[in-house]
Amino acid sequence: MTYDLVIRGGTVVTTEAVLPMDVGICDGAIAALGRDLPAAGKELNAAGKFILPGGVDAHCHIEQLSGGGLMNADTFETATRSAAFGGTTTVISFAAQHRGDRLHTVVEDYSRLAAAGAITDYAFHLWVSDPTPETLTEDLPRLIEAGHRSIKIFMTYDRVRLHDEEVLDVMATARRHGALVCAHAENHGLNKWMADRLVSRGYVEPKFHGVSHPRVSEIDAFERLIRFSQFLDQPIMLFHVSTAEGLAAIRRARGEGIKVFAETCPQYLFLTAQDLDRPGLEGAKWMCSPPPRLTDDQEALWRGLALGDLQIVSSDHAPYRFDASGKLSAGAAPNFKQIANGLPGLETRLPLMFDEMVSKGRASLQAFAEVTAAAPARLYGLHPRKGTIAVGADADIAIWDPEREVLLTDDGLHDNTGYNPFAGRTVRGWPETVLRRGEIVVANGQLLAAPGSGRLQLRDVAPSMKPTGKVGPELDPRQNFGARLL
Amino acid sequence: MTYDLVIRGGTVVTTEAVLPMDVGICDGAIAALGRDLPAAGKELNAAGKFILPGGVDAHCHIEQLSGGGLMNADTFETATRSAAFGGTTTVISFAAQHRGDRLHTVVEDYSRLAAAGAITDYAFHLWVSDPTPETLTEDLPRLIEAGHRSIKIFMTYDRVRLHDEEVLDVMATARRHGALVCAHAENHGLNKWMADRLVSRGYVEPKFHGVSHPRVSEIDAFERLIRFSQFLDQPIMLFHVSTAEGLAAIRRARGEGIKVFAETCPQYLFLTAQDLDRPGLEGAKWMCSPPPRLTDDQEALWRGLALGDLQIVSSDHAPYRFDASGKLSAGAAPNFKQIANGLPGLETRLPLMFDEMVSKGRASLQAFAEVTAAAPARLYGLHPRKGTIAVGADADIAIWDPEREVLLTDDGLHDNTGYNPFAGRTVRGWPETVLRRGEIVVANGQLLAAPGSGRLQLRDVAPSMKPTGKVGPELDPRQNFGARLL
Amino acid sequence: MTYDLVIRGGTVVTTEAVLPMDVGICDGAIAALGRDLPAAGKELNAAGKFILPGGVDAHCHIEQLSGGGLMNADTFETATRSAAFGGTTTVISFAAQHRGDRLHTVVEDYSRLAAAGAITDYAFHLWVSDPTPETLTEDLPRLIEAGHRSIKIFMTYDRVRLHDEEVLDVMATARRHGALVCAHAENHGLNKWMADRLVSRGYVEPKFHGVSHPRVSEIDAFERLIRFSQFLDQPIMLFHVSTAEGLAAIRRARGEGIKVFAETCPQYLFLTAQDLDRPGLEGAKWMCSPPPRLTDDQEALWRGLALGDLQIVSSDHAPYRFDASGKLSAGAAPNFKQIANGLPGLETRLPLMFDEMVSKGRASLQAFAEVTAAAPARLYGLHPRKGTIAVGADADIAIWDPEREVLLTDDGLHDNTGYNPFAGRTVRGWPETVLRRGEIVVANGQLLAAPGSGRLQLRDVAPSMKPTGKVGPELDPRQNFGARLL
Amino acid sequence: MTYDLVIRGGTVVTTEAVLPMDVGICDGAIAALGRDLPAAGKELNAAGKFILPGGVDAHCHIEQLSGGGLMNADTFETATRSAAFGGTTTVISFAAQHRGDRLHTVVEDYSRLAAAGAITDYAFHLWVSDPTPETLTEDLPRLIEAGHRSIKIFMTYDRVRLHDEEVLDVMATARRHGALVCAHAENHGLNKWMADRLVSRGYVEPKFHGVSHPRVSEIDAFERLIRFSQFLDQPIMLFHVSTAEGLAAIRRARGEGIKVFAETCPQYLFLTAQDLDRPGLEGAKWMCSPPPRLTDDQEALWRGLALGDLQIVSSDHAPYRFDASGKLSAGAAPNFKQIANGLPGLETRLPLMFDEMVSKGRASLQAFAEVTAAAPARLYGLHPRKGTIAVGADADIAIWDPEREVLLTDDGLHDNTGYNPFAGRTVRGWPETVLRRGEIVVANGQLLAAPGSGRLQLRDVAPSMKPTGKVGPELDPRQNFGARLL
Repeated sequence: MTYDLVIRGGTVVTTEAVLPMDVGICDGAIAALGRDLPAAGKELNAAGKFILPGGVDAHCHIEQLSGGGLMNADTFETATRSAAFGGTTTVISFAAQHRGDRLHTVVEDYSRLAAAGAITDYAFHLWVSDPTPETLTEDLPRLIEAGHRSIKIFMTYDRVRLHDEEVLDVMATARRHGALVCAHAENHGLNKWMADRLVSRGYVEPKFHGVSHPRVSEIDAFERLIRFSQFLDQPIMLFHVSTAEGLAAIRRARGEGIKVFAETCPQYLFLTAQDLDRPGLEGAKWMCSPPPRLTDDQEALWRGLALGDLQIVSSDHAPYRFDASGKLSAGAAPNFKQIANGLPGLETRLPLMFDEMVSKGRASLQAFAEVTAAAPARLYGLHPRKGTIAVGADADIAIWDPEREVLLTDDGLHDNTGYNPFAGRTVRGWPETVLRRGEIVVANGQLLAAPGSGRLQLRDVAPSMKPTGKVGPELDPRQNFGARLL
Repeated sequence: MTYDLVIRGGTVVTTEAVLPMDVGICDGAIAALGRDLPAAGKELNAAGKFILPGGVDAHCHIEQLSGGGLMNADTFETATRSAAFGGTTTVISFAAQHRGDRLHTVVEDYSRLAAAGAITDYAFHLWVSDPTPETLTEDLPRLIEAGHRSIKIFMTYDRVRLHDEEVLDVMATARRHGALVCAHAENHGLNKWMADRLVSRGYVEPKFHGVSHPRVSEIDAFERLIRFSQFLDQPIMLFHVSTAEGLAAIRRARGEGIKVFAETCPQYLFLTAQDLDRPGLEGAKWMCSPPPRLTDDQEALWRGLALGDLQIVSSDHAPYRFDASGKLSAGAAPNFKQIANGLPGLETRLPLMFDEMVSKGRASLQAFAEVTAAAPARLYGLHPRKGTIAVGADADIAIWDPEREVLLTDDGLHDNTGYNPFAGRTVRGWPETVLRRGEIVVANGQLLAAPGSGRLQLRDVAPSMKPTGKVGPELDPRQNFGARLL
Repeated sequence: MTYDLVIRGGTVVTTEAVLPMDVGICDGAIAALGRDLPAAGKELNAAGKFILPGGVDAHCHIEQLSGGGLMNADTFETATRSAAFGGTTTVISFAAQHRGDRLHTVVEDYSRLAAAGAITDYAFHLWVSDPTPETLTEDLPRLIEAGHRSIKIFMTYDRVRLHDEEVLDVMATARRHGALVCAHAENHGLNKWMADRLVSRGYVEPKFHGVSHPRVSEIDAFERLIRFSQFLDQPIMLFHVSTAEGLAAIRRARGEGIKVFAETCPQYLFLTAQDLDRPGLEGAKWMCSPPPRLTDDQEALWRGLALGDLQIVSSDHAPYRFDASGKLSAGAAPNFKQIANGLPGLETRLPLMFDEMVSKGRASLQAFAEVTAAAPARLYGLHPRKGTIAVGADADIAIWDPEREVLLTDDGLHDNTGYNPFAGRTVRGWPETVLRRGEIVVANGQLLAAPGSGRLQLRDVAPSMKPTGKVGPELDPRQNFGARLL
Repeated sequence: MTYDLVIRGGTVVTTEAVLPMDVGICDGAIAALGRDLPAAGKELNAAGKFILPGGVDAHCHIEQLSGGGLMNADTFETATRSAAFGGTTTVISFAAQHRGDRLHTVVEDYSRLAAAGAITDYAFHLWVSDPTPETLTEDLPRLIEAGHRSIKIFMTYDRVRLHDEEVLDVMATARRHGALVCAHAENHGLNKWMADRLVSRGYVEPKFHGVSHPRVSEIDAFERLIRFSQFLDQPIMLFHVSTAEGLAAIRRARGEGIKVFAETCPQYLFLTAQDLDRPGLEGAKWMCSPPPRLTDDQEALWRGLALGDLQIVSSDHAPYRFDASGKLSAGAAPNFKQIANGLPGLETRLPLMFDEMVSKGRASLQAFAEVTAAAPARLYGLHPRKGTIAVGADADIAIWDPEREVLLTDDGLHDNTGYNPFAGRTVRGWPETVLRRGEIVVANGQLLAAPGSGRLQLRDVAPSMKPTGKVGPELDPRQNFGARLL
């Protein structure tokens, strides 16, 4: 057999092992792994390099329209370009329903945008803000069965949040049709009470954004969703875990056999509340939601990743320019409630994680491959096509130079945000060459793939995402006088 | 010194000890305890009897107007008459605000009713359904400072429930002015979701009322209130604990130093979900909210009482006749949502508890005195005037015959409900003679006191009800960039 | 009725209430409590004073012979004199068996010593070091039934410790005959391993004594005994709790319904490891076992007392002079292993606790009465004869001046130790007049009672000390193929 | 490149993915994985088959001499033959020190036996029964550094158990030189106390063996070792977890960052205490230690495997014939204390696990590969040479027919025990062809490799087995007055 391309002399990293071998690629997929593979028409020399699966970023906001005209800084082109430069070859962004929208139309709209602009492959989470009967009984079933097997819900934010009954409705629908429900989980009332008190007392600077999202707000909402998950026997994915206590709740639940999954993000691993404490409005650059917490939380989250209680590291890329088009759209002296939340992160996610896990020795290369690629692919039904270096998998590959040191700067990124919340850090290890389905997308600092070359990834139900089949006592007809409610 | 009355030859029971002694009474108060007290003008022979503090029932609905014209079966006269026959000499009922009412007017209205009818002494919980600025900044402060030092809130029921922001507002107000907040804590959305599903699928009999209040509904709401309590450093009283897991949450919180207090009721100690499973609408007689649970929960609750995690046993007396004026007001074939929740219990609380704790040997006489009299008096600021046999205390006394066996029947009570949810049980031990402030209220099965002879009890702040003074990190200005929010 | 003595005008404190009243005493017992009791032949004016139950110190080493000729500094006369000056009227010390001794002989020996010297009333714990068949089947049953209803065991110290099988034998014997087992619980091997390492590396000063008793040593031994207690359904009393984690284990166990009781001592509430860090051998004065820990542990222990997880505060009085007869018996430069462990504390226990709980406001007067008198009396079967102010109880009373300030000094005590580990502190509140069975023992700083006037207190089984009757699954014949092992 | 052997058409299973591909083998190692690999001199057709890593059995007793002349039924030849037939290609057995033996001599003796007989590859755990200074400071360091990087200790059994001080000595030595400590952890005293009681009361049948090992015995010992592990910052491996509570202790510890690892065995997943309840001595066949427990424990252990709290499934192969040479060596009517504990299991481990995990659908193929091969290889320093299908790994491969059904019978095994404790079960899925370093060891039911063809595997320290480097507060010199004890 002859290969289209052989990557020779590198060290292949999977979650299973780290071993020197060549990689043979045919028709966009990995055709062989071996010692001394036969020469191919095209070869890449990877001596001294790590051959890693292309990153899968399972949580990013791209070309998204917010209510009120607020502008997400990125298009699919700029966002996925940035992702590719950072070693990521698949993104899952949002098809974000506003109240009044039909969800299937929303998906069509975002699909059009992505088809035109995306450089990496992509998929969508179905963001449900309006769980009408049409949404629940027509659109969701059809979209889920078509391969959009994840739903995003919010428990907070006035325009998008679902009440508890609605949360239960969406979860029951997801269970029936086979989708994972992902949640932004914070106690809405507590956050609102805090924000109102703060603003009314004149505590308005960006740093008070953090104060307005108490830790217990996350903990309370996590616990509630976990209970709903157990109650309905429907798996749940908790997005952007930020607190040690929230994580502890997850671990407890998993220990009881509840199918709770969880993600954290670089901003919770590398930033703290202090990062928002800057003169004037500068702190707004670090405003995201939930906010960065304490160094003790960072340590807890690292342990959560090590123990598998957190499975995924995503970016939660939510780019707003630090100008009137984005963060500062409310004018010269806004209070923190008037400033958009969100940070860019598609490009820096992998280098930050590589530097800390591999270069600084906090974990292994296998663990890096797991949390940045294999696990998100697996949990969202993309594995083993995505997220691993294996015979038969898509040749989505990032060739890393483990020795290269890069100083992160505000103007060093390839997205359209205009600043980098991690600027000033030097990381060791960088993805030099990036392939997507065997095609070189980035090499020598150049983008080589065209906008629109990315493909939509429809997804199956991952087995681990399925309900256990055992409903709790509360929904068990034997214990409930025969009532069947699911 | 001469006494107005001496109770001679009995065995006095307090939470401290059980010892034979005489009780000398002057001017409505206990003037002496001793061996061989001098003869008084009036004497009661208590040989072979226990002299117990008159019961304090801290949770009962009396002469209360519900929205929709539903009729509480009792007046202050009938309710407190029933209480007195059951050995209870002080009740705390509700001054129940409807939305739109001014709270101070509500208190005045209920005070008038009680002044005219009450046979036992009484106090009010301030039931807040409408936390307007007037309620929060005018009525509550004034009423609390006047001696109404407890507030009742609901987290469920459409017409009365408070949202989380409102709960926090009320708790912060209570903290500032010194009141205990008591809560009916269940997750509103979950209950509603379940009830809707049940009814829409035709599960409409009374027994499905229980199914519509999942256990996790209680647990979730308890956990949330506990977190709010810790967050604001404001003590909380959780009413009518019904589940083992809810109790476990309380124990955990108390172990962390959070000031959480809790009550349970005879219906959760003696009834189960099965009691609602009767032909036709009969089960409605046992409908209360939260519903009775499982025998395992009963055992857990008994242990909670033994360990002090539950401090109080109240009746949650909420009487509705089993006819068109009450339970069946919605006509011939209502679904369970249309049936009023509530049971009578003022009269049976003490005999049921005495039978189980003392006669059946589950606990000690001291423990019986604690959970039925001393603890409710202490926690609500009535102790030591009420709730104990001590020199200087009001002579509120129930003389119990520990040997008398009584068969509970539907027509054996002295309230106006017309049925007894505990009918059919035989209890051993009965309060034969009951004194309130030294006056014999009940003797030989006769009521001897006049309606209106009961007195309003204004209350101080019990020391154990005060905030700790240490706010959590989230409200601590040192950790929150100086923001002072309390 | 006329009284031998009336204490007039004071405020009586019990665990139930704090109320002004007079106390009438006849024949050594309290005959009446009341307002304006009739004049008696003898009166004490207690205006402005608190009338508290005489303290019950349930853990003290008196006139005890250690192996190796080491000398306990006190006789029954000096120890109970000291106790009386500190407001304590009953002590429970040890009848300490050495290997080879018959236990009944040991009890006779100590009884003789106490009968000759004791000024307070007293009882004995049966200290079992040699659980031979004679001890287990002859001496223990006979002594327990005679009213010595508590056994002391050690899990560490070479000469006295019991192995796990022996611990189980003693507990099973206690269960059969009705006694409480009290334990010094530390992991022997771990302590030994640490001490050997320390000494072999030259870390020999007194402060390393603390290091040689790791926290986990206590935790491990507590957990083991708790499991044995549950396994055998035999209540256990854990002596001198010193760590937050040990306490947490106790709370957990109690929450599961295991009958675990626990004590702490002033040295763990007021001292820390730093107190041993003195020049030369000075630190030896603060050496006790387990050692004082951290300030965080102190806070945890205070909370344990507040929650009832710790029921008792005892002194663990173990007096050794700071000279060649005691602490320094091994010569000029001993390592810490050669220095006797123990502190005097009979006299300072109550004033230290009163100062912190009452004068400094950490807790209530009722709580002070509970942990220092009522609870030890109750748990060891002396209540209500001892430990309370109640009609019928022994008139064991300490009249406290809550305003008096006393500076603790090395020479201010009435025992024979020669130093005071709490010297230098000023406490507010002091027992001025002390009565034992109605007789004034201490007044105006003078001892008024004769050596030998104290009486042995035989004891019944306290109901709360009885096994639950429900053995765990492991000993349940239904689950164990019919094997009956208890 | 040409291959010695190509396995064509099968589906390769690793912990990462399950994908169809060919396997090319050269010089005993895997040289390539790919689609349509070029033809080799030798080919195996694996169409419809799973290509799994050869099993690694990390816990088996082979050709071991017990004290008292008791005979292990197997030699290295018979044991590893049996292993190979069951799909296992590497075993770790014991170099078992008796008291008085020099450990290095023990290793030499066992090495000689294995070199002569072994058919699979093999390694040794260093079994330490006599931690003399020579053992601790000479033999262990030398043997560990030579590549025997695991130590086995016992906390029970009179002839081999270590006291706590000795356990600490061995763990500290392991930490210094880099070895994993594996433990049989049960409370010796409790087991002994139970056994003595049982026998003395006439409960002597084999089923009482189970009763004599109470659950709390395991729990207590686990907790102790976990604390020692944390105390010394030395990883620990808990062997043969049998109880839900023991597992819970492990999960708790792992959540706190303690490096605790754990194994269970098929006997705890597939058998219960009831299996020992047979007429006469028959039950002896199922006697092992700890004993099989309850079905609830089985479910807990399966969950522990799913969550990663248990990492490994080993056989604990300990073969004794059911005759006078083995189980019945004490004569016709022994009590259970006189009967050897242990079951054969090398051959049935993989088929039992495959049937339950894969054929019955309890878990995934990846999980099967993990717990039976990859994890034991990784944790004991053999990975990725052993335990995985990867380029560069040894070609240790089992080709499974997932459809083949096999009825387990007493005479169907290839070891020398003479019975099969799992006889009577039918399993689906069987290893048809087994390769060890590329050599076909078993095919078509025939053994094709020679005794002595197995090789000793020396091992590096697995990174995850290393101490964290952070000692607990108790050994931290900053907190311990500068004492350095490690």
